[in-house]
Amino acid sequence: MGKILILYYSKSGNTKKMAEYVKTGAEVIEGNDVRLKSIDEATADDVFWCDGIALGAPTHLGVVPWKMVRWWDGNTGEFWQNVDGKFGCVFSSSGGWGGGTELTCQGLAKILMNFGMFVFGLPDYTSGDMTLHYGSICAGEPKREDVIESCKRLGRRLSEWVAVYVDGKREESPLVNRYR
Amino acid sequence: MGKILILYYSKSGNTKKMAEYVKTGAEVIEGNDVRLKSIDEATADDVFWCDGIALGAPTHLGVVPWKMVRWWDGNTGEFWQNVDGKFGCVFSSSGGWGGGTELTCQGLAKILMNFGMFVFGLPDYTSGDMTLHYGSICAGEPKREDVIESCKRLGRRLSEWVAVYVDGKREESPLVNRYR
Amino acid sequence: MGKILILYYSKSGNTKKMAEYVKTGAEVIEGNDVRLKSIDEATADDVFWCDGIALGAPTHLGVVPWKMVRWWDGNTGEFWQNVDGKFGCVFSSSGGWGGGTELTCQGLAKILMNFGMFVFGLPDYTSGDMTLHYGSICAGEPKREDVIESCKRLGRRLSEWVAVYVDGKREESPLVNRYR
Amino acid sequence: MGKILILYYSKSGNTKKMAEYVKTGAEVIEGNDVRLKSIDEATADDVFWCDGIALGAPTHLGVVPWKMVRWWDGNTGEFWQNVDGKFGCVFSSSGGWGGGTELTCQGLAKILMNFGMFVFGLPDYTSGDMTLHYGSICAGEPKREDVIESCKRLGRRLSEWVAVYVDGKREESPLVNRYR
Repeated sequence: MGKILILYYSKSGNTKKMAEYVKTGAEVIEGNDVRLKSIDEATADDVFWCDGIALGAPTHLGVVPWKMVRWWDGNTGEFWQNVDGKFGCVFSSSGGWGGGTELTCQGLAKILMNFGMFVFGLPDYTSGDMTLHYGSICAGEPKREDVIESCKRLGRRLSEWVAVYVDGKREESPLVNRYR
Repeated sequence: MGKILILYYSKSGNTKKMAEYVKTGAEVIEGNDVRLKSIDEATADDVFWCDGIALGAPTHLGVVPWKMVRWWDGNTGEFWQNVDGKFGCVFSSSGGWGGGTELTCQGLAKILMNFGMFVFGLPDYTSGDMTLHYGSICAGEPKREDVIESCKRLGRRLSEWVAVYVDGKREESPLVNRYR
Repeated sequence: MGKILILYYSKSGNTKKMAEYVKTGAEVIEGNDVRLKSIDEATADDVFWCDGIALGAPTHLGVVPWKMVRWWDGNTGEFWQNVDGKFGCVFSSSGGWGGGTELTCQGLAKILMNFGMFVFGLPDYTSGDMTLHYGSICAGEPKREDVIESCKRLGRRLSEWVAVYVDGKREESPLVNRYR
Repeated sequence: MGKILILYYSKSGNTKKMAEYVKTGAEVIEGNDVRLKSIDEATADDVFWCDGIALGAPTHLGVVPWKMVRWWDGNTGEFWQNVDGKFGCVFSSSGGWGGGTELTCQGLAKILMNFGMFVFGLPDYTSGDMTLHYGSICAGEPKREDVIESCKRLGRRLSEWVAVYVDGKREESPLVNRYR
């Protein structure tokens, strides 16, 4: 049974809403256990527990917010060389398009890479002008249907990859067989 | 008299339209000479000529399109240590939000930094959910009024900085006096 | 049997040497098939063939060299939504430390992410002052023992992850059991 | 009289040493006032005061350390739209080459860009294999002569640009006349 953690920091509530949509998407794939936690609730054990992680935070100044960095920094001693090989993806919200969400997604991705995790994006569109190639992004509150769908699809894909690679369902997966 | 170059590569025509709006904005500040050129038209002399440059390209695979990289690569011998100290800003279009425009803006910014130029963004919004903190970005064709205004404001600010710092209008500038 | 592709572009020969060391490392894990190809030799089929890819290029202007971008750009139509779920890592050389290798590694990583691949780094050191957290990097020719070891370890880890996740050796892997 | 601020966060003391070398370089240009402050000592007024800023921090997890992000975050209300148009450059230290210094330099640069400042690198080498194209970087303690020189040259160039553009010495500057 695959284990999925959605870990987020939210200030205005927008990233929290994104996280909830990511969770909804992750639960579409049956047979995985999905946890949603803010950094105020999560402990190092949640990361040890999971096979796949979706990490989200708003963009502040184009970088990862300090409370999110502090959370990982405080657990670095435990995580170092002990959490690699997990599957990871990222999401971020900001006040406006162009406000740094893609840049903060890259920052979140670097944190996961730093610990040896696998980071992926989706070669996919959720509408004529909404993509999630490097993670899901949102300007303001996630209200647009294509933004909500972007969050859901991110969570679903994470859940799919965990099912495929961790839960041993590789042979029966249309996702994998697609590219064979 | 300050000299402004808007240099772009466009495949679909969207980045070209952005470039034209950047030019419109740059021309708002009187007394600067503004040139708009695609990389098919521009030569190394255009870069030598300018005091400020706005550099634009669509995002391809999250990185700077190869034709734009090739253009700079081919002029590196001439530019190296000969074009630093110019003012620069960037813009990018993509098929959709989240498609890599911010990442490509960073790539374009790195090219300018590599040659010792000054790269800036705007701490500004052009609507409730449109910013240009790290350059102007656009999903698809620039139709939204706030995207068009983002391009114009980018060009205008470039033109203002050149007037302030190169054309010696520092004492009389509200832009500079604002932060004193 | 896992399949590993080391794909590189080299101008001076330094990245080619790195690629050869990556190959040596990848071959340490028995039972995987390892191919080394430059972008002049490789076709789209090599990417379709592989389960894991190590992608390398020198840094030019802080971004991915145009010939490497062009190679992927030319194959985008075939690759789009057809190569995701493969394991990927990156490496880069430059004239000097601080010359953009980490930035170019990020550019290469974005290309892989764009196509839905998994990108990872190594939470590891190969000497007191050499790491490969975001890919292997090198200043000039790979002569330092810790740089050579960095390339080898990158290839080896790629080969290990493919064995673990693609070749079904997850249960017996010390790499995976380590973090349980 | 130009005003230069070297602002840093240091944990191990290595970035502090880099900052001191940056200061030494900045003082080479006569007629500028140079301040060196850690984020524990500096207040928002130091940023308002300066015409040019060199910002430094170690790399933690490939991103800007949380204490540095928190410092800027706490002053965002005051800084927003009030500190743009200043000249900025960056520097970073890490445990090893490849450990994220270039990435953290980019993070620091994004913070400065976010506030509308001009960010630059140096198209220069300080030895056969040491550059500072995107800021000065160091692995461990700054002991290598070319690393120390990199820090000094970064500070000197910042001081030169301030003299040229803020202190009105543009006409007499070899730096500017070089590219005419």
